[in-house]
Amino acid sequence: MARLTTIGFDADDTLWENEHFFRLTHAHFAELLADYAEPDVLSRTLLETEMRNLARYGFGIKGFTLSMIETAIEVTGGKVPGAVIGRIVNAGREMLAHPVDTLPNVHETLETMTRDHTLVLITKGDLFDQERKLAQSGLGEFFDAVEIVSDKTASTYRSAFARHGTGPEAAMMVGNSLRSDVIPAIEAGGWGTHVPHTLTWDYERAEPPVEAERFNAIGSLAQLPGLVETLKG
Amino acid sequence: MARLTTIGFDADDTLWENEHFFRLTHAHFAELLADYAEPDVLSRTLLETEMRNLARYGFGIKGFTLSMIETAIEVTGGKVPGAVIGRIVNAGREMLAHPVDTLPNVHETLETMTRDHTLVLITKGDLFDQERKLAQSGLGEFFDAVEIVSDKTASTYRSAFARHGTGPEAAMMVGNSLRSDVIPAIEAGGWGTHVPHTLTWDYERAEPPVEAERFNAIGSLAQLPGLVETLKG
Repeated sequence: MARLTTIGFDADDTLWENEHFFRLTHAHFAELLADYAEPDVLSRTLLETEMRNLARYGFGIKGFTLSMIETAIEVTGGKVPGAVIGRIVNAGREMLAHPVDTLPNVHETLETMTRDHTLVLITKGDLFDQERKLAQSGLGEFFDAVEIVSDKTASTYRSAFARHGTGPEAAMMVGNSLRSDVIPAIEAGGWGTHVPHTLTWDYERAEPPVEAERFNAIGSLAQLPGLVETLKG
Repeated sequence: MARLTTIGFDADDTLWENEHFFRLTHAHFAELLADYAEPDVLSRTLLETEMRNLARYGFGIKGFTLSMIETAIEVTGGKVPGAVIGRIVNAGREMLAHPVDTLPNVHETLETMTRDHTLVLITKGDLFDQERKLAQSGLGEFFDAVEIVSDKTASTYRSAFARHGTGPEAAMMVGNSLRSDVIPAIEAGGWGTHVPHTLTWDYERAEPPVEAERFNAIGSLAQLPGLVETLKG
């Protein structure tokens, strides 16, 4: 097989907790609007609002906060009190200050993999927030490059792995999102390795590309060095 | 002098209109809250809120929209109607869809400068929004690299000009902000060229570094090729 020179890592819910904080905020949001909307109607409206706004806001917490505000106005027919909106703004701001909880085995895996590979962090979301999380995680030293991108498509991986490695054919993308990490990396000509997280945003779900030769799934990042060895063997 | 190999360009209010749209939204915001606050009190509160939030939101329209909402809640003591908040959200979203109005002489200047120099676009703000504007501007083809950064400090320019050029000593940054474009580029060891715009956000103001050898000011981008020739002569 072609040499595997470069490994791309997703960040949110691959290296550190993220969806967990969205879920907490979600629950808080449902409480704030309990007098106005059933939790499942609220959830559905919020997801619809988020999807509609992606084309305008892109991914990230600031866009999510604006979508919560819009949803609150919509489900209350404009009657939501200003003070409740203020609490939603605060909830969004608290998310931007949440601690960075590194997932198990991340440190050891990066330490091992960085010895023989070019490591690239490839993440979407708010530029400023992702930089903060990377700095707080203390994981920056393991990476040869960091790409904070507005979306993750095959073309994202083609150019990231060309710029920082030796092209997508010699690269593997590792992440918890089939839709954003695994499938487009395989489409770009690379390997795609899925490391599922117990919490995954509906948007990121997709059918695993089980037919693809370069698709793999591992239960934990701890299995990555072993998988890469096997591929080389 | 050292050879000038690389030229960095700011984008907002250097290549295309930006502050203009903020001012329009500002005026709209003041109208929406005319029953609750004097325009100058509102302006002052909004600027204070923006400054306080920079450390959390960074630069860009989404953070600005959230700061407008927070200000509306603050100046009304929480009494702002949900419908007014809805209009503020819409105003922010409209900014994210505003047309890209290229400033005079931009096209010709970039076309001339790209022949003999590496051109790098260095801009801050929302990643997604800046990518949209660059795509709509049609100016992407003139640039060898694009850096969308969370802030513009001397260290930003040191690394951007090392990555895409031959180091800051051989680079010039061109922009309308003394604070973000000119002063930190000079601090990094490069040239800083100020192209003032009639509208400049208070945050971006600073004393021109008139003592600095590598500081220049030009009235229009059309003067840039001439200035660069002089420096080489």
